[in-house]
Amino acid sequence: MEVVTPVTIFQNALLSGAEVVRSVKLLSQLKGVFEDEAAFEKMDGDQVVYEVDAWLPVAEGTEGGLFFGLTHLYPGTVGDEYFMTRGHVHAVENRAEYYWGLEGEGLLLLMDSNRHTRAERMFPGSLHYIPGYTAHRVVNTGDSVLRFGACWPSDAGHNYEVIDKNGFSRRVKSSDNEPVLL
Amino acid sequence: MEVVTPVTIFQNALLSGAEVVRSVKLLSQLKGVFEDEAAFEKMDGDQVVYEVDAWLPVAEGTEGGLFFGLTHLYPGTVGDEYFMTRGHVHAVENRAEYYWGLEGEGLLLLMDSNRHTRAERMFPGSLHYIPGYTAHRVVNTGDSVLRFGACWPSDAGHNYEVIDKNGFSRRVKSSDNEPVLL
Repeated sequence: MEVVTPVTIFQNALLSGAEVVRSVKLLSQLKGVFEDEAAFEKMDGDQVVYEVDAWLPVAEGTEGGLFFGLTHLYPGTVGDEYFMTRGHVHAVENRAEYYWGLEGEGLLLLMDSNRHTRAERMFPGSLHYIPGYTAHRVVNTGDSVLRFGACWPSDAGHNYEVIDKNGFSRRVKSSDNEPVLL
Repeated sequence: MEVVTPVTIFQNALLSGAEVVRSVKLLSQLKGVFEDEAAFEKMDGDQVVYEVDAWLPVAEGTEGGLFFGLTHLYPGTVGDEYFMTRGHVHAVENRAEYYWGLEGEGLLLLMDSNRHTRAERMFPGSLHYIPGYTAHRVVNTGDSVLRFGACWPSDAGHNYEVIDKNGFSRRVKSSDNEPVLL
């Protein structure tokens, strides 16, 4: 029987051929993201904060296509602020996205175009709809790696600049080992 | 801390509020899908062949939005042909979709616009990209329920008629308890 064995999702990585790409985000690449710059400067910039495995079966920008990703966000803090992703909105602003928790725990920050930020708890089995026009960032509030899946339109694109410039309106910090949304 | 608890994915169902809908497909609703009509007529038409839980956070037809589903396809045969979904193409033909295996085993049939049908093996962790212009149907070739996740654009729509009328170019049957693509 002629049957194709597909791309496989493992907890640790999407394994496949040429269409799967892994990108690595080092702490040094997140300069300006965390509030405590003095604490940031004392840390090892070469440490990995997160990795993203993405399956891109069509060209970026293809209308009607979809991309699939798996993010591995490591535990840690800069001062009292938890490790988090850089955060972005989509270049085509009405494009939505799903995230779903696979392992570990954290918070998904969702900021609308009025800079109102809300948070959703991420845990294994949690499912999150990120509407269009909504900036999104994930924060690892646990002691272990936070892994989550993602699916988004191949013509959504990424706009990081708006977050690089103005950040989110709220930060997640550790207070007595509990996450607090400030 | 004001934090939202999101929709939760369980193996058995997507549990949530008003935005999650469950649809049930009975054998009697799949008349004409299976080749052996005599065997079909002898069976209990009220038995459930599959159920779909879908989270529809935006209106059907919304550009840029996404829907998320969980399908539970039960094991069984009609004659020597395995239980399967009705199958469809998208009404907006260039819209893609992802399926991924969660539990059980089966085959994903993918038929292009030239009626060439290929199959991908589904198992827990398998990930499948369904390109635009491609009819898709899932066949449960195992002895237990086949559960799989799905993500698709909210403006994709469904066109069932083309499959109801012409079927797929290939069928999956059991021969000596092994699936064969005919």
